[in-house]
Amino acid sequence: MTEFLIYTIIADFSARDFVFIISTVIQFARCSEMSRKILIIGGVALGPKAASRAKRLDPTAEITLIDQDSVISYGGCGIPYYVSGDVAEAEGLRSTSFHSLRDADYFAREKGFAVRTGTRALKIDRQKKELLVKDLNSGKDELLPYDKLVLATGSTPFVPPIPGADADGIFSVSDIHKAVAIKSRLSQGRVGRAVVLGGGAIGLEMAEAMADLWEVETTVVEMMDQILPRLIDKNISLMAQRHLEEKGVTVYTSERAASFLVEDGKVTGVKTDKRTIEADLVILSVGVRPNTQLARDAGLAIGSFGGIVVNKRMQTSDPNIYAGGDCVEMPDLVSGGSSFAPMGSLANRQGRVIGSNLAGKPETFDGMIGSFIIKLFDSCVSKTGLSLESAKAQGFDALAAFVVQADKAHFYPDSSMLYMQMVVEKGTQRVLGVQGLGPNSSSLLARVAAVAAILKYKPTVQDIANLEFPYAPPYAAAMDIINVLANTAQNILEGRNRVINQDEFIERFTNREENNTLFVDVRAPAQGEPLVEKYGPHWLNIPNNQLRERMDELPAGREIVLVCNAGSRAYDAMCILQSSNKNTVNLQGGIGGLKKAGIIL
Amino acid sequence: MTEFLIYTIIADFSARDFVFIISTVIQFARCSEMSRKILIIGGVALGPKAASRAKRLDPTAEITLIDQDSVISYGGCGIPYYVSGDVAEAEGLRSTSFHSLRDADYFAREKGFAVRTGTRALKIDRQKKELLVKDLNSGKDELLPYDKLVLATGSTPFVPPIPGADADGIFSVSDIHKAVAIKSRLSQGRVGRAVVLGGGAIGLEMAEAMADLWEVETTVVEMMDQILPRLIDKNISLMAQRHLEEKGVTVYTSERAASFLVEDGKVTGVKTDKRTIEADLVILSVGVRPNTQLARDAGLAIGSFGGIVVNKRMQTSDPNIYAGGDCVEMPDLVSGGSSFAPMGSLANRQGRVIGSNLAGKPETFDGMIGSFIIKLFDSCVSKTGLSLESAKAQGFDALAAFVVQADKAHFYPDSSMLYMQMVVEKGTQRVLGVQGLGPNSSSLLARVAAVAAILKYKPTVQDIANLEFPYAPPYAAAMDIINVLANTAQNILEGRNRVINQDEFIERFTNREENNTLFVDVRAPAQGEPLVEKYGPHWLNIPNNQLRERMDELPAGREIVLVCNAGSRAYDAMCILQSSNKNTVNLQGGIGGLKKAGIIL
Repeated sequence: MTEFLIYTIIADFSARDFVFIISTVIQFARCSEMSRKILIIGGVALGPKAASRAKRLDPTAEITLIDQDSVISYGGCGIPYYVSGDVAEAEGLRSTSFHSLRDADYFAREKGFAVRTGTRALKIDRQKKELLVKDLNSGKDELLPYDKLVLATGSTPFVPPIPGADADGIFSVSDIHKAVAIKSRLSQGRVGRAVVLGGGAIGLEMAEAMADLWEVETTVVEMMDQILPRLIDKNISLMAQRHLEEKGVTVYTSERAASFLVEDGKVTGVKTDKRTIEADLVILSVGVRPNTQLARDAGLAIGSFGGIVVNKRMQTSDPNIYAGGDCVEMPDLVSGGSSFAPMGSLANRQGRVIGSNLAGKPETFDGMIGSFIIKLFDSCVSKTGLSLESAKAQGFDALAAFVVQADKAHFYPDSSMLYMQMVVEKGTQRVLGVQGLGPNSSSLLARVAAVAAILKYKPTVQDIANLEFPYAPPYAAAMDIINVLANTAQNILEGRNRVINQDEFIERFTNREENNTLFVDVRAPAQGEPLVEKYGPHWLNIPNNQLRERMDELPAGREIVLVCNAGSRAYDAMCILQSSNKNTVNLQGGIGGLKKAGIIL
Repeated sequence: MTEFLIYTIIADFSARDFVFIISTVIQFARCSEMSRKILIIGGVALGPKAASRAKRLDPTAEITLIDQDSVISYGGCGIPYYVSGDVAEAEGLRSTSFHSLRDADYFAREKGFAVRTGTRALKIDRQKKELLVKDLNSGKDELLPYDKLVLATGSTPFVPPIPGADADGIFSVSDIHKAVAIKSRLSQGRVGRAVVLGGGAIGLEMAEAMADLWEVETTVVEMMDQILPRLIDKNISLMAQRHLEEKGVTVYTSERAASFLVEDGKVTGVKTDKRTIEADLVILSVGVRPNTQLARDAGLAIGSFGGIVVNKRMQTSDPNIYAGGDCVEMPDLVSGGSSFAPMGSLANRQGRVIGSNLAGKPETFDGMIGSFIIKLFDSCVSKTGLSLESAKAQGFDALAAFVVQADKAHFYPDSSMLYMQMVVEKGTQRVLGVQGLGPNSSSLLARVAAVAAILKYKPTVQDIANLEFPYAPPYAAAMDIINVLANTAQNILEGRNRVINQDEFIERFTNREENNTLFVDVRAPAQGEPLVEKYGPHWLNIPNNQLRERMDELPAGREIVLVCNAGSRAYDAMCILQSSNKNTVNLQGGIGGLKKAGIIL
């Protein structure tokens, strides 16, 4: 290779980045005539991607990828779908879209780099640029020289220190071998009852996999007071939980496993701080920890989340060593802090950036936004950016707007309801995130993806209010929910829409006698009257189209909770009552939102 | 109303905007104690939205909306779905999601403004701030005073000057009355054969409506050389056309209607420059023209696209007159020029901005991005930003990357292929637009919406390469097509992936003897061998996993077209051959892309 290019970085970059770029170009120029040795540790997602990209850009590079496992390059996120039977064979997760098995031979022949499986990395000598490895088959140690090293060491599921955790039948979902073992038990009919410890993404996907096709009586036990903690807010998680329960999955939150019941070395149940649950199989999914021992031993910088620290070019504190995927932490572009986000998609994108840099083409990965999506039976839950809880935890003075609206034009048949929440910062009106629950289709994804794309530009509610979401009746509303969320947030931020959330509604409803709270239902009599009959003096039905003339029926002073089916007519009512100086609040998401969370008045 | 707020505009604004804001705040302060008269002309989409918003913000405003029609506030974009039968009754398009009919009474009672239907605006007196109107029922003229006026006059379908265009049975889809008349003929079984003139969005939606439920033998005649001209590029439109044809719709492009055949005043057919097509019904859908006569007569500025000129606050050249929706033109935030985009979704969003400004709350609508989506039987076509053709027409030195990839993880069952194209500017690597064809679900929408959101920030391919599209196997790929499009575009822009498009492939394939072109098929023998048998010395099958050792079989000098099923393995092959100095090009989208466009080798 006798030519090299000086690439122009379009994005903003600091003086420090500039030094990196120039030094890399010079370095690339210097060594472009010689073959460069690139060593990659870890072959699941990021490793093969980085190796393939580097080799495409620089065919002269000598690249070796090592992995302690016998199997590499598989879609780890697909494990629940292999267990469920959606993916018939484990090989499906290891094959390309054109049905080639991604093994060592494939990478050698098609991608041009060497793979050594069954090879464990023991120690990095950064001075000599050598990696000590052990061949797990022969037991022999060997020193591998490198010019550039990549740490793609991934993460390991956390095993909670609970007595009996080593019993037969207790699995974490750490790799494809575990997946095969779990599915084998299911398909042999050995599992009648299962407990999943941890209501995060993998736990819930595994719960669905077992309960759906295999009809296993499945219980999820989550220590926090909601499922999908730290990912989505409690109001949305409650809707997801109701859906799981409708589908036959038992969910216990705010509950902790105390010990495992074991007979003859085999698990028979889980004892929690509240009950005992029988189980033939237990899935541990209480989080993962970045694999950083190798990096720590080599003296590389480790961050506050326990992940390896990398710069935008994915270089560790040693510029000859790159790292990415589950073993690193990285900037959170929304909060401005750091974050640990073990996601296959991030690993793939980072892998490509590392591959470019390995080949001397400077590229950057600026950080993460926090996008997430999960299928739960017939529902989908997704979010991007910050939840209200995490925004507050990170010091934002934030609030949430909650909107219920169809995913198509409301007159178009077969539409489904979306239950979405937008998190915004007070004062700046900046949008920090969006989340929601919708049908098992891409309609929620479409709204969340649009906000995911825009978040790094620090948009305000006005930006999302006018976001040009593609419109035709079969796919969206003319004023789509994503725009309505921003409009609603703006009305709340500017004090026109004084909302209460479901918790606040329940508190008011429960204490309605003491506080003499009046609930004014502005829906049509067919909807409102039954509740008037039930709750007498505390529930009044004045449809919006009578409100202007019946305003005087409303008491002054007494707090009035306006309710409708989704929250928008109640907002209209609040505007109508604006000049009357009534003390009104509006239940966000209305009765429809309550119902979806399982709250029936 | 004794209070008013000074709102802070977060977005960038010019000194001119600042003067507007200050002047509006002062003006608002001045007149906040008195009732203000707001007059709105036009009641389909923008008018009612602006009126409702203004009244919510300022309950003291006196608002009157006039419309010459008897029916207002309907989802005009829903007309094809009313005609198709998806929406059973025309009232469905005029009702809220909670089944209230949006008539004059509804707006008076629920939204607090007056509606006068059957009232035509004749003349604006800007000096006296009066509008001359005619009551179409009584025939009487009347002068209506205003403080602020809103022009929401919409657009009118263009009727081409073709002999016989006034015959019975020829309809444009201009309003709900026409829709009722068309559906009435269909439901009475009076239509066996229909011709749609114009292959734009409305024409194709109407073609589907008639062909699908009503089983009408339908022919679309389009003057340009593709359907959906100016919206999407020809390669994608060809795929859409094939799908329409599969569904039984006949499509003629590059064909012009010359005259209508008429018997006893009724249309019986269409004579084009190429043939005669029998028809009981003809739909004219060859575009719309903004209704600007009133504005022109009043001396308001009209732009180069024939639409009323407005500033970011949607004020015309007279600051007391606002305009929006189909009658205005506005900045194109991608091209930097102007555009005319008659879309119900834009009208709704602009209506809210106008409503805010009417109530003294400064808000802006910066311009349009150019988002579009359409359902075509089992397919969906969507785009945002510029097509390659329109980018070039507007002076951009642009190219397109075309990618075929599944909408879910490739191992996940029931995925559908997405055929997508990204338009990028050379040099800056700026992304100008994205478009594609996919299944009739929201999966294409999700990708297009993400790019629609980001376009106004002038993203580069690197921004989209790392766009954090939410990932789980049932909804996306770990390296999603939206990222792959950006990666592919970057590889093309930087000269690593030398692509040819389908046209260029066909030209090379047709002239393979003369030019001695060699096609190297890098797929497995099962796919490649049949074409070797068919095209002998011009078609060679060397699967990628044999390419490194069989490189010498490839001739030097002779042009080699690398082909695989989607274009990605052929790119790998090009990289493998990089050092061998072979003269290679890669068919974008591969054989799979060709097949979707109806091209079978």
